[in-house]
Amino acid sequence: MDDRGMLIVLSGPSGVGKGTVLKAFLKAHPQFRSSISATTRAPREGERNGVNYYFYSQEEFYQLVSEGGMLEYAIYNGNCYGTPKRFVEEALQRGEDVILEIEVKGAAQVRAACPDACFIFIIPPDFHQLAERLRGRGTEDAEAIVKRLAAAKDELLRASQYDYIIVNDRVEAAADRLYTVIEAARYASKNQKHLIDEVLKDA
Amino acid sequence: MDDRGMLIVLSGPSGVGKGTVLKAFLKAHPQFRSSISATTRAPREGERNGVNYYFYSQEEFYQLVSEGGMLEYAIYNGNCYGTPKRFVEEALQRGEDVILEIEVKGAAQVRAACPDACFIFIIPPDFHQLAERLRGRGTEDAEAIVKRLAAAKDELLRASQYDYIIVNDRVEAAADRLYTVIEAARYASKNQKHLIDEVLKDA
Repeated sequence: MDDRGMLIVLSGPSGVGKGTVLKAFLKAHPQFRSSISATTRAPREGERNGVNYYFYSQEEFYQLVSEGGMLEYAIYNGNCYGTPKRFVEEALQRGEDVILEIEVKGAAQVRAACPDACFIFIIPPDFHQLAERLRGRGTEDAEAIVKRLAAAKDELLRASQYDYIIVNDRVEAAADRLYTVIEAARYASKNQKHLIDEVLKDA
Repeated sequence: MDDRGMLIVLSGPSGVGKGTVLKAFLKAHPQFRSSISATTRAPREGERNGVNYYFYSQEEFYQLVSEGGMLEYAIYNGNCYGTPKRFVEEALQRGEDVILEIEVKGAAQVRAACPDACFIFIIPPDFHQLAERLRGRGTEDAEAIVKRLAAAKDELLRASQYDYIIVNDRVEAAADRLYTVIEAARYASKNQKHLIDEVLKDA
């Protein structure tokens, strides 16, 4: 390893519980940190700028996008969400490993920009459970739910583009698997090219 | 995971100590087993058929090769060495994980036949140390040593074709890293396609 940290992308279909798995993981392994997203939506009660989110105005957000300053971004329900490049890059340069918990489309943007990151996909034990969870949010009509289920299916079909697939059958078990694959990702050959160069320099 | 075992290929340049790392690993993790190679060379004192090697006649060996019964094979110093497919396949079907410790050319043959296996490459901490070890075998003249060094360099250049790269700086540390990557390989997306099919069958 050189001293640079490792970028870890955690994704999966909407409703699979990636946030819950990451929370359990970070509690067990506080040496890791997750990236803080930027959003244009208004802070909710108790949310603090730079802790839960970076709260940006639309103008600030669009400015950053146009400068190429967002690693990935998307619009949900009229609000923008994204990962500012600068904070991630600074942490990696300090040698910290950074975890991005993001949606499948955002992960595809990161893959294009940083193919050597470690990409982890979380899946439900079965589709039924995911459907129940998407229905359970209860704020949407039948048509919206059908759309979300179709989107989830489409997202599951992209799993093979990831390095690892973890089943979220139990949160603690999934968090343990997450630790196993992150530790191994340090030895992935795509992260070790500098070692080969190093060995071959005297050959 | 389905119930089938995982095929793990451990390779690296000649002289890097892959046999020593594997021995330390198997001592610490006796639940794993390494595949037994077949060879046409004569048994050495104390070597037993089916324990150290399967000792085959040249005719038996060639017969198996011509039937497509060797997962990989090569000739060194006039003797044939290879991995009979049948024993590996039987162990995998019993759900056992099987480790093949083989040369770089053999690993390339396994990659062509079984791209979904887990491929691990062991490298020395520096080329100087590898060169010392190749010289230290002491049975060859200068020309033979130069050839071996050139071959080792060529082999190191293939490291990026492997899933993982492990440095053998200390045998125990390398064996620990081997365990880390083998555990994670269970979650590699190339080994998890059946899970996605399973989840999507009700979608």
